[in-house]
Amino acid sequence: IFFDTSPQAVRLYLLYNHLFMQTLVYVFIIINLALALFEDPAVVPLPIWATSTIEIICLSAFTVRMVHYAKVIPRDEFWKDPKNICIIVIVTLSFIDLTIYGALKATGYFAIRWSRVLRPLLLVNVTEGRQENLKLRRAFRSIRNALPQILYVFLLFMFSVLVFSLMALKLFGKRGLLTIDGSPYFADYLDIVFDLYVLVSTANSPDVMMPAYNYSFFTIFFILYIVINTYTFMSFFLAVVYNNYKKYLKEEVRQLVKARRFKMCRAFSLLQETWGEGGEPVVTQAKWNHLIKLVKPNISIAHQELLWSVLDDQNKGHIGKFAFVQLADLLSIQVITVKSQPHPIQICFPSMYSSSVSRFIRYVVHHRMFVYVYDLIILVNAVFIGLDEENPLVSNAEWGFLALYMLEIILKLYATEPRAFFARHHFWNWFDIIIIVSALFGTIINSALKHSGGYTSRQILDIVFILRVLRLIRLVDSIKRFRAIINTLIKIGPTILTFSQLIVVVYYIFAMVGMELFKGKVQFFEPNSTSPDQEYCGNPLLKGTTFAKLNYCKNNFNNVVSSFIVLLELTVVNQCGFTAVTHVSARIFFVLFHIVVVIIIINIFVAFILEAFLVEYTVDKSDLQKKIEELELNVQQDGVDTGLVDAMTMNWIASRRSRTVDGLLQRMFETDLRPEGFNEEEEPENIKKKHVNI
Amino acid sequence: IFFDTSPQAVRLYLLYNHLFMQTLVYVFIIINLALALFEDPAVVPLPIWATSTIEIICLSAFTVRMVHYAKVIPRDEFWKDPKNICIIVIVTLSFIDLTIYGALKATGYFAIRWSRVLRPLLLVNVTEGRQENLKLRRAFRSIRNALPQILYVFLLFMFSVLVFSLMALKLFGKRGLLTIDGSPYFADYLDIVFDLYVLVSTANSPDVMMPAYNYSFFTIFFILYIVINTYTFMSFFLAVVYNNYKKYLKEEVRQLVKARRFKMCRAFSLLQETWGEGGEPVVTQAKWNHLIKLVKPNISIAHQELLWSVLDDQNKGHIGKFAFVQLADLLSIQVITVKSQPHPIQICFPSMYSSSVSRFIRYVVHHRMFVYVYDLIILVNAVFIGLDEENPLVSNAEWGFLALYMLEIILKLYATEPRAFFARHHFWNWFDIIIIVSALFGTIINSALKHSGGYTSRQILDIVFILRVLRLIRLVDSIKRFRAIINTLIKIGPTILTFSQLIVVVYYIFAMVGMELFKGKVQFFEPNSTSPDQEYCGNPLLKGTTFAKLNYCKNNFNNVVSSFIVLLELTVVNQCGFTAVTHVSARIFFVLFHIVVVIIIINIFVAFILEAFLVEYTVDKSDLQKKIEELELNVQQDGVDTGLVDAMTMNWIASRRSRTVDGLLQRMFETDLRPEGFNEEEEPENIKKKHVNI
Repeated sequence: IFFDTSPQAVRLYLLYNHLFMQTLVYVFIIINLALALFEDPAVVPLPIWATSTIEIICLSAFTVRMVHYAKVIPRDEFWKDPKNICIIVIVTLSFIDLTIYGALKATGYFAIRWSRVLRPLLLVNVTEGRQENLKLRRAFRSIRNALPQILYVFLLFMFSVLVFSLMALKLFGKRGLLTIDGSPYFADYLDIVFDLYVLVSTANSPDVMMPAYNYSFFTIFFILYIVINTYTFMSFFLAVVYNNYKKYLKEEVRQLVKARRFKMCRAFSLLQETWGEGGEPVVTQAKWNHLIKLVKPNISIAHQELLWSVLDDQNKGHIGKFAFVQLADLLSIQVITVKSQPHPIQICFPSMYSSSVSRFIRYVVHHRMFVYVYDLIILVNAVFIGLDEENPLVSNAEWGFLALYMLEIILKLYATEPRAFFARHHFWNWFDIIIIVSALFGTIINSALKHSGGYTSRQILDIVFILRVLRLIRLVDSIKRFRAIINTLIKIGPTILTFSQLIVVVYYIFAMVGMELFKGKVQFFEPNSTSPDQEYCGNPLLKGTTFAKLNYCKNNFNNVVSSFIVLLELTVVNQCGFTAVTHVSARIFFVLFHIVVVIIIINIFVAFILEAFLVEYTVDKSDLQKKIEELELNVQQDGVDTGLVDAMTMNWIASRRSRTVDGLLQRMFETDLRPEGFNEEEEPENIKKKHVNI
Repeated sequence: IFFDTSPQAVRLYLLYNHLFMQTLVYVFIIINLALALFEDPAVVPLPIWATSTIEIICLSAFTVRMVHYAKVIPRDEFWKDPKNICIIVIVTLSFIDLTIYGALKATGYFAIRWSRVLRPLLLVNVTEGRQENLKLRRAFRSIRNALPQILYVFLLFMFSVLVFSLMALKLFGKRGLLTIDGSPYFADYLDIVFDLYVLVSTANSPDVMMPAYNYSFFTIFFILYIVINTYTFMSFFLAVVYNNYKKYLKEEVRQLVKARRFKMCRAFSLLQETWGEGGEPVVTQAKWNHLIKLVKPNISIAHQELLWSVLDDQNKGHIGKFAFVQLADLLSIQVITVKSQPHPIQICFPSMYSSSVSRFIRYVVHHRMFVYVYDLIILVNAVFIGLDEENPLVSNAEWGFLALYMLEIILKLYATEPRAFFARHHFWNWFDIIIIVSALFGTIINSALKHSGGYTSRQILDIVFILRVLRLIRLVDSIKRFRAIINTLIKIGPTILTFSQLIVVVYYIFAMVGMELFKGKVQFFEPNSTSPDQEYCGNPLLKGTTFAKLNYCKNNFNNVVSSFIVLLELTVVNQCGFTAVTHVSARIFFVLFHIVVVIIIINIFVAFILEAFLVEYTVDKSDLQKKIEELELNVQQDGVDTGLVDAMTMNWIASRRSRTVDGLLQRMFETDLRPEGFNEEEEPENIKKKHVNI
């Protein structure tokens, strides 16, 4: 690929890749998405000219960005990428829609903002090289790849539903049975298909079979249906999604590792020199150190030496190609450097810090019983939290507990060197301090407010309560078995973020469609309102329905926030009272939502958790991690041997966790990645694209 | 182990292992389990003396069987086996319970038949060497092995539920919110814990959050709860169960294969002779043929020769140890021998059968279009089935369709040799004939009844309808992609039987407990009854509850059949209206049921389907299967070369399926099983036990 290397072009390129510009694009995307809050039907209504102006600004920003990108990369590269074409189409359509909508509204006609459905697709298609976005695209690609297989299972599943429905029609249709509403039971074929489809989501579980069951022992029909469709086919969907997810992920990681190794081989051939006896080409330690300094400017010398000693395990002063290529994997292992320095108090008041009382305190704090005692305190605290707040004894006890927790933090700070205590990997220390200190402030503000004016702020009290309860989570960390599960949970955290993005994209699209279909059909009245419409959610069609009876009026599509909440409820249990207020064909909306979210997205989520959990439980540590841990052990043992634990100046802890999800993935498939060697010849396909982005 | 080899002991042993005796034990177990139908609360009430007598007979039979078993195997072996002790304890406890119950009932006291809970355990513990029972025990063992890990995740999950409940208590308890029933919302800690636990099973999904949502945007609490507990933790449970299931299954199969190979090695050392040049020990073809005839008396010579040619691929006339050991694997591959003989009509009327008209008919029937035309007919038929039966056009069309289907069968029979057509592996041919012929008979009987007395039997009509709908399933077989999924379904079939046994054991125990707790609390009235109690299921406590409103009265524990149906409903969606009619503590019953069935058993079911599906989609054919298929191909090609397709006397089809589930499992883990060689030295542990059973 030919790049223009004139200073002007390079400046343009650097400007394009500047973090500020990238962030700006995301800000505009978020503003564009958030417009749904202010557009009709709105949470906070704004006039049309205001929202339109903001949208025009956003769309212009995207246009400018695209033009900028087109200038930066060669023309044919630009048009070859479907992402760019997608963005251009979305922006153009949005402009057209905005114009039509504005014109129709100005002349008083009815108009639909249909282009809002396209907005979240910008989030998917904008590739600013951020890792988060790459993951989102990866999730989408993995869905796209699984689609054909899912389709086959889905068709068979639908065939099974259709055959069962036909059987139900023949068996129950002519029997004159009535549902609980008094309408004929299983008399219309399409109704049956829908009812049986909903049965798969278990939403209408016993209701749909009760008339048949009351009539006679026809339940065997439903038992068969549930076993085949609800359990077997739903497991099939999971199996297909899981299988594809695994396969595709493996392929992606393989490509990534291949590209990385290829680049490392290139680097090696640049740096190599032939060692002594005309043998293999090698890289010397000096050159290697120089390279590391370039790649990671803020690496500590100790860390650098550790890495070298892992690679050059025979202390030859140079490494071969095989060891050199491992560098990238090595850098992805998180190595925590703990400098065990003397405690500041020890420096200021050496005699006091080494007195027998002080030493006893430090001994106690580091003792296992200290943890147990505080676990017990937390348990007692849990009981007190559950008791009635109004009781003066309970509210006073809270001060006692706060004091105890503060004491714990102070003692720990006294016994541990502050920099070590606040090290980045000590998650629970940070957790403790934030929770306790905020609770302390909250409680003080709350009681100050109470004493001054007798007024209690509900918001502050809520926060204080939540902080108190969160304190209990600490208990989990004390039990080793739980820690493994918690670690999996924490590791899954970032991926849950990716999934929430995915969910937002899908929810946003469905919310936009849902709002156009159902807005204003269901009204919510404040509980203390006296309107007679309250009983049936302001829509006479809902009179006497279970939807109104169960007080579901706030489950509506009247604005984007409540739409999201309704969609969440539909994800958990697919209830569709909305078909009562519009046409029966609105069911298509709910069935589509069920297919997309429950059958595909939730299964991908389950597949990810399944895989992550299995890896955590079954994959061994990689060779490099093992080597580092061995070395670490040696260093620590050296310290013990010379009785210098306290004075030891350097201590490495090789974290059991790989730094990134990619590292985890690589570990997942390490056995499969081994065989393919370090051949420089075949250049992976996606490297070309990488050149452009980097 | 020392065995008594006196003729008397051997006769006793043979009697013990006689198929009749084994079947008898199963019959007694089933009678014992079926007693629940006749005991109070009964479907068909029988007097106590009758059921007691039957139970005493059953228990005596088990006792006799145990005594017999104790005579057959050495004393210390007998007492070492926990299964035997378990059976003795169960039988003893049942006798004691029966005596106490009889005495109490005779004197008019209140009594509980608590030992009925133990009955299904007999099914688990009786090991009569049947494969079905082994699988059931395997499933139970795999659950037992997964329990500790499930427990840890469950404890963490419960911790999370408890912490969320405490937070809910603090956030909502004092706000004075009301539920839809008008009771205070989230005011009692234990109620909250239960409500949030039920939310995990999604049964009370939007209801439990509606008051909080109506009040303000506190839904974020529920969203977090659902993401963490309903989705993440439930996936964790699946992951743990799946992981253990896979691990344990692998270990079992490894043991099995090891034992088999060990035995094959022993057989080899008995049969071996040193070949010619003082080289390796080998087995000659003559000896091998003799062995095969002993093992499988009804094997065809062709099949035997095929097997030999697979093992002795260099035509040396003898095989080494490696090839010999493969015999067991080889025998588990289903080889179908198709003798393509001339058609009987060809023999009787050779000139007619080879006339041009006859040849044209045969050409048409074997043509692909023939299948397409009949698929189209089925589709049209589907539309007709959906239409109204009363319409004379529709009911007459049915005769037309039946005629068309009969014609298809006759044509196929004309074009294909009958023995080949009715071969055991031609599932769809059998399916067709059974469905069509029964439908024909049904329709004839139905219309005969109608014409004679104008009376239509609902039962016959139902059967005719079902048969008609089942006909449509044939469509699926025409599409190749679907066939793979259908094959997985068919392969899973036998395992679903094992799971249904497992489910019966668990359901039976819960049904017995549920009947003692809830019998008679909820009454069902026939729909046309005029009793005023009908509105609240005969229990004033249910007045105005949703349970009564939704007409759930037939969901009761009043007899064992309805108990099973209620438990099935609880499996799908855990609804617990029953707590209203007894004490709140009855919730424990429902929570326990959810834990056992949904968290453990359903997950094992999903794990099995997941694994079976993944294997079907990813595992290649085993080496031996490939070899057989190559040979088959050669045979077929030979036939083509000499232009003797019709006259070819022999044709092998190596089925793509392994014969047993064990074969499938072995294929699953084949890669892992390869490395461990054929060492004769180490005897697997479970072989010793095998000696006793075999």
